[in-house]
Amino acid sequence: MSGRPKVVEIHEEGPREGFQIEPRSFPLADRAALVEALADAGCSQIQVASFVSPRHVPQMADAAELFGTLRKRPGTRYTALWLNAAGFDRARAVPQVDLAGTLYFYASDAFSRQNNGQGAAAFAESQRLWIQRYREAGLAIESAYVMTAFGCNLEGAIDERRLVEVLDFVSGLLRDEGVDCPRLYLADTVGWANPLAVRRRVDLVRKGLPGVRVGLHLHDTRGIGMTNAFAALEHGVDLFDASVAGLGGCPFSGHAQGSAAGNICTEDLAFLCHEMGIATGLDLEKLVDAARLAERIIGRRLDGKLMHAGTLDALRRRS
Amino acid sequence: MSGRPKVVEIHEEGPREGFQIEPRSFPLADRAALVEALADAGCSQIQVASFVSPRHVPQMADAAELFGTLRKRPGTRYTALWLNAAGFDRARAVPQVDLAGTLYFYASDAFSRQNNGQGAAAFAESQRLWIQRYREAGLAIESAYVMTAFGCNLEGAIDERRLVEVLDFVSGLLRDEGVDCPRLYLADTVGWANPLAVRRRVDLVRKGLPGVRVGLHLHDTRGIGMTNAFAALEHGVDLFDASVAGLGGCPFSGHAQGSAAGNICTEDLAFLCHEMGIATGLDLEKLVDAARLAERIIGRRLDGKLMHAGTLDALRRRS
Repeated sequence: MSGRPKVVEIHEEGPREGFQIEPRSFPLADRAALVEALADAGCSQIQVASFVSPRHVPQMADAAELFGTLRKRPGTRYTALWLNAAGFDRARAVPQVDLAGTLYFYASDAFSRQNNGQGAAAFAESQRLWIQRYREAGLAIESAYVMTAFGCNLEGAIDERRLVEVLDFVSGLLRDEGVDCPRLYLADTVGWANPLAVRRRVDLVRKGLPGVRVGLHLHDTRGIGMTNAFAALEHGVDLFDASVAGLGGCPFSGHAQGSAAGNICTEDLAFLCHEMGIATGLDLEKLVDAARLAERIIGRRLDGKLMHAGTLDALRRRS
Repeated sequence: MSGRPKVVEIHEEGPREGFQIEPRSFPLADRAALVEALADAGCSQIQVASFVSPRHVPQMADAAELFGTLRKRPGTRYTALWLNAAGFDRARAVPQVDLAGTLYFYASDAFSRQNNGQGAAAFAESQRLWIQRYREAGLAIESAYVMTAFGCNLEGAIDERRLVEVLDFVSGLLRDEGVDCPRLYLADTVGWANPLAVRRRVDLVRKGLPGVRVGLHLHDTRGIGMTNAFAALEHGVDLFDASVAGLGGCPFSGHAQGSAAGNICTEDLAFLCHEMGIATGLDLEKLVDAARLAERIIGRRLDGKLMHAGTLDALRRRS
């Protein structure tokens, strides 16, 4: 399973991550145009919006309307995020949503408490309910995420034994419930990963959940997100979340603990793959166009680099 | 020579790169404070300013005065850049300048013409004169740089044969002149490198100039600069140029060909090394302070990531 893959799957998180973190709301037409531009660029899966409390996250209040404008096309899935049964029901009512059964686990107890109001063990136990809900909805489990799989600003470093405990729990839960989960993502939620930790923890997943496809959800909090992705690529990982233009970073959060940082940047990751001869199914030029559209919508310089410099292929053709 | 090094040397380019590229000038006291902060953080070599035409580069007109304010301290060299004999003479007249004999070569003919008004071959030949000048000044040759060693926006991709030609020329020149050059840097001047190319071209240097220490001068033009540095680290490279806070990027240059991009970010690179157990001799916290000082001086958000998120050690200590 090690060794650089020939083909890599990159799932787009920008529209949800990006517009959810911004303090203001953006016109629905702009957000829809960005999703369509990403689909045009060949994105196979785009997380469009979340079905969460409109009171707490007013930026996502029109999630259903946003999905309603999208043109479904073969080869592109429009996914959504929900955190409770009401959100799931709202998502199910929208035909354009490609429902995906996803389970969440936390390696950090403190982070789980902050996000969910309950510790990591209780939250993990609650995933049993989601398996039942998805079963009742006729929905297969597609993915499990281990959040804060490398460390957490509240709890500090997450050691490998802790990760193994989480993986053991996931494994037991799936066995108990008699369900498969073909993909497991390690999420570096707040930027604690490094290339050596990535390799070791990917190996722990392969050992603990043999046959599962390992994915990585990486943030570029401390400037080495792409390096972590590269280390994973060289270690045989072929499944990544990323965010167009690096959407999701929050320049307003200052230097304090907990300052938000975006996912690794989709088009920069696609460029890395492209330059190394790894197929992504993405059109780099169109992806750069989508990133520039995102920058125009947000109205300030975004973190993506390729979008500001341009691809090399155009320059190669000239010479 | 392959295999991750235990110790890495990172040379700081920020003060020159950063303040030279800005359209306006900054107070001398601010620039001096940044250099002192970098020295405090343990930087072993800091390129402080360039001695170039005050008419063309007014931001560097007070280079001598800037050096004049610096407190020399053991373990830190304050270096300068010059492009002609007049600049070299000005630099020699300033006691605080740590003179370093450096040779430059271009892999791209078009880029050399644009920068020097002469092609790569003529410019390479002109380095003979610099060897003589340095000899007359009693100065050893320390480093040679191969600019645009991976590609160039004007000429396109630089193939490996072309790089080998340049290395052959360098090798012949050093032999003819009977001088040593202990370090050779491959400079990815406009962001054409990728991890595979880095490994192959580092090997070409080792083959063409056995015994020379290979350095890398990488820009983050297309978002994979740090990834290229990591690939080099894993390939045994232990010498890098970098720029605090990613200074040197130019957000004003838009999406056009030639848009400037900064060196890889010093503190992000140091963080990568630190997390992998590679010694840099740098104090990460002080380096982050220096990066934040740079951001205050420049007056807009800079590209560095660690400076905005903070290091992990502080969070580890809490847990």
